[in-house]
Amino acid sequence: MQHLLDSLNRDEADKMALDALYPDKQEWQALLNQFISHVDEKELLELETTLAGDTVTYCHSELNKPVCELTELEKTFSSVNIPEFPVKTGTYVQYLREDILNHVIPVSSPAFVGHMTSALPTHLPALGKILTALNQNLVKLETSHVLTALERQVLGMMHKLIYNRDDDFYQQWLHNGDHALATFCSGGTLANLTAMWACRNQLMPAKGDFAGIAREGLARGLIHYGYSGLAILVSELGHYSLKKTVDVLGLGQDALVKVDTDKDGRICIDALRAQLQNLHQRNIKPMAIVGIAGTTETGAIDPLNVLADIAEQEQCHFHVDAAWGGASLLSERYRHLFKGIERADTVTIDAHKQMYVPMGSGMVLFRQPALADAIAQHANYIVRKGSKDLGRHTLEGSRSAMSLMLHSNFHLLGRRGLGHLIDAGIDKAKQFADLIRQQEDFELISEPQLCLLTYRYVPRAVLQKLREEAEPVRQKLNEALNALNQNIQTMQWAAGKTFVSRTCLHPVQWSRQPTIVFRVVLANPLTTPEILENMLEEQRRLAQQSPYWQVLQDLCPIDLKRQHNNKCANSL
Amino acid sequence: MQHLLDSLNRDEADKMALDALYPDKQEWQALLNQFISHVDEKELLELETTLAGDTVTYCHSELNKPVCELTELEKTFSSVNIPEFPVKTGTYVQYLREDILNHVIPVSSPAFVGHMTSALPTHLPALGKILTALNQNLVKLETSHVLTALERQVLGMMHKLIYNRDDDFYQQWLHNGDHALATFCSGGTLANLTAMWACRNQLMPAKGDFAGIAREGLARGLIHYGYSGLAILVSELGHYSLKKTVDVLGLGQDALVKVDTDKDGRICIDALRAQLQNLHQRNIKPMAIVGIAGTTETGAIDPLNVLADIAEQEQCHFHVDAAWGGASLLSERYRHLFKGIERADTVTIDAHKQMYVPMGSGMVLFRQPALADAIAQHANYIVRKGSKDLGRHTLEGSRSAMSLMLHSNFHLLGRRGLGHLIDAGIDKAKQFADLIRQQEDFELISEPQLCLLTYRYVPRAVLQKLREEAEPVRQKLNEALNALNQNIQTMQWAAGKTFVSRTCLHPVQWSRQPTIVFRVVLANPLTTPEILENMLEEQRRLAQQSPYWQVLQDLCPIDLKRQHNNKCANSL
Repeated sequence: MQHLLDSLNRDEADKMALDALYPDKQEWQALLNQFISHVDEKELLELETTLAGDTVTYCHSELNKPVCELTELEKTFSSVNIPEFPVKTGTYVQYLREDILNHVIPVSSPAFVGHMTSALPTHLPALGKILTALNQNLVKLETSHVLTALERQVLGMMHKLIYNRDDDFYQQWLHNGDHALATFCSGGTLANLTAMWACRNQLMPAKGDFAGIAREGLARGLIHYGYSGLAILVSELGHYSLKKTVDVLGLGQDALVKVDTDKDGRICIDALRAQLQNLHQRNIKPMAIVGIAGTTETGAIDPLNVLADIAEQEQCHFHVDAAWGGASLLSERYRHLFKGIERADTVTIDAHKQMYVPMGSGMVLFRQPALADAIAQHANYIVRKGSKDLGRHTLEGSRSAMSLMLHSNFHLLGRRGLGHLIDAGIDKAKQFADLIRQQEDFELISEPQLCLLTYRYVPRAVLQKLREEAEPVRQKLNEALNALNQNIQTMQWAAGKTFVSRTCLHPVQWSRQPTIVFRVVLANPLTTPEILENMLEEQRRLAQQSPYWQVLQDLCPIDLKRQHNNKCANSL
Repeated sequence: MQHLLDSLNRDEADKMALDALYPDKQEWQALLNQFISHVDEKELLELETTLAGDTVTYCHSELNKPVCELTELEKTFSSVNIPEFPVKTGTYVQYLREDILNHVIPVSSPAFVGHMTSALPTHLPALGKILTALNQNLVKLETSHVLTALERQVLGMMHKLIYNRDDDFYQQWLHNGDHALATFCSGGTLANLTAMWACRNQLMPAKGDFAGIAREGLARGLIHYGYSGLAILVSELGHYSLKKTVDVLGLGQDALVKVDTDKDGRICIDALRAQLQNLHQRNIKPMAIVGIAGTTETGAIDPLNVLADIAEQEQCHFHVDAAWGGASLLSERYRHLFKGIERADTVTIDAHKQMYVPMGSGMVLFRQPALADAIAQHANYIVRKGSKDLGRHTLEGSRSAMSLMLHSNFHLLGRRGLGHLIDAGIDKAKQFADLIRQQEDFELISEPQLCLLTYRYVPRAVLQKLREEAEPVRQKLNEALNALNQNIQTMQWAAGKTFVSRTCLHPVQWSRQPTIVFRVVLANPLTTPEILENMLEEQRRLAQQSPYWQVLQDLCPIDLKRQHNNKCANSL
């Protein structure tokens, strides 16, 4: 197919022929008007209907083939010349089918359990189409109007979900343009950045002859307020977006103080206190303590109430990164796990994770609506002072109406429906944890606190040896295991049938040795126990096909037959 | 309608009835599986087809009514309780139609000429649906794969469009994961921020005992390199995102040095040199000179080659903000206006402006692919070192495959088709400028350099008086004119038939007095001269209905009859 597109655009003879086809301005104009004014593209509508009507099936029909090598794909996408002439829609749709969709990763498949984004409710593609067609711009009222009012409502609902303030509070603030209960952004990274930006600016306001950090900058702010530096404290499982945040904000990555976690992946309070003391001794002001409500790697929830107490004592900002986990507040059964989140000054939540809307729906919530003032912006031609333009308090400028997606889920699934999805995911994770524990050759590394867990492949004989042998042998074994697990995950992805992600943890139970693990997020309601069981079987098979299998065998002979018998015994 | 949704979710009796409807986990599960697994929502599909098939007509059918008061709309969106139970899709669709779409701003209407986002090619809503259904995440290969390769191709095409490097260059860099030719982001604001972030970090690399600004932060960087501060220089017409940028990056808004513009809205080179000298005297390092290729307010293009020369002499970074204007590089007739852009170290372009794709398609281009290293990030579970994950060089994390939208426009419209759209817009702007000049009661304030111009309502008698009278009278007249023009724009928007935006300029020809103007962007190919002529007529009518009309009359009596006769004489 690519050859077709290429030849249309590269061949000089064809170019001339096409020149003859579209000879003058008027004909071009007619062609373009048609592009803008009415659709007549049955091939595209056909494709759209097949695909969006049932994405999972569409993707599954392509599932039983391995993922195409990236280097192969790159060849298809190697020309840097913008095609000179248009191709027919039918040609493009064929190209789309054969060269693009044919190789697309079926992230919504119930067998792809490695991401935080799972399947979406089927009304959303239609809404995606409507939103694309409307192309509203939420930066200002003039280009969004009713959707500005709707977005404020959605943000109010999220605020209520977290902070549960009374009616008077929302009456006063919901549609108030001067402050903000929350702001939408493209994702958790920008939400964390926005929260820390507001926090930094609020810490060093105008005072005396100092016009404030927003005006005069960080270096002068530090001098004026007499700090040697600022710091943000978070557990070692903090999301990498916080590293970007301190870099972007000018604090530097060293300003991100990583605190040890306990065996369950929660921040160690003693270690936090020690770090705080250390900062004080160095005259570094703790700018924010960040609690994680659902770590990306293990799904652990920090003790938020304890962190809130400490932040209060320290008189420092308390931020909760609940980008992924925050959605579990919708569950009556599990919202107690987040106790203390209502004391956070700011909270990050991504609706595109467990609130089942598409990519691009991050939010930062402000406990006190006035905090948003620390980052308020104005311009004559847009986001004017006194206006209710949402762009006054967002990091981004032009921005689409993604909030409608969340609005539709709130109405079409209801709080109970969404809560049920959360509950079902957590139940499933607990069941899968049990299943892993029953295996002879898998080890659960982190228990599911929400619907996320980690595990690895490790034959029982190796596990025993790891426990019994001395350090040098153990280290060798661990390295071999890491190489093997990394390879299993890569092969599994390449096979294209199922997917887990992987990360490297430092589990307390393994003396904080770097440990490569599979990471599974069970948010897709269509994922069944059978799919998971089959996936373990597949991983087992891949392990034995891996080039690293022999390395492990050489270090510790594995009796596969015995292992198989044990496995059967276990499942009886 | 809202009462229906509300009653479903507020009424306790109903709640109990619904509780009975969905009594147990299994039934919930079945309901939710259905939501995820297959669509059966004929109302939604009907709506989607009507609306996306011909958005302009859909919006026009709603055009002949005034825009609803915001405070009225806010009442509809005032509950902060997430609905407890789901409503039927049909109910929601009815609500969507009546309470949301019924009030939506028809930004794609050819009579709405105040935004930089115009109508879209009609294949894009279908693609929007497909992208929503696929929900790919471009942060890493594992969740995007083929679309990562495609995005790199699109970025390569954009790089070639600007920098036009040779085949070897693109062979080497196009699919190279360690550096980046460019990165996608949600819009121009993030593109400018990303460019300046990279620039700031590159300016203060690791050296001696200094680990680099990314690690140690801005304050230490300044000390290590011996600067009292950093500055970014841009004309007074620079986009407000640059003010956010210097704030976020920790430089402070005072670090954004605004340089005077000439009568055509271009940066004054003498003033720039003077500012540079002033900075040197204060030991402030000019970090970047920003050229604007299409200012947001007047569409002016700075003399890029001259700026490139100065940046070279100063050994400072040269950034071009071509967020809106850059698309005009696609035009053979007008690309010469951008001469010098190929010398920029970084360039910002928004595809969602004049490249006719939906909101959310910003890009920053790097002349030297290694510049992206200054902002490279890594994490164990994502964007690993050595991988080709796009997330290694983006400010955002999870991100959708918007690049496919641009890819489709490149193929379905072709470079020539897109170039023709640019040419047609500029031609139309020139025609409209002529039309305004012919009017007795309108004044062209800025000439169109691209397809953007500004003008205002000012009756001839007032214009004469403005030219002849002494300062205090002039100022009063100008204030009255400003109030009137601001009011016309507001009334025009509220009437809902046509739309211009407005801004406040300081035109050289009016001794830099603050001047409220209408701002028009003529990118929609369906906008006709008749639409524009009728719009002037409407503005004229609104002027005379405005409460500020009398204020102006009191200062300078306007003979409407005479003016009308003159207008007719002019159009003969």
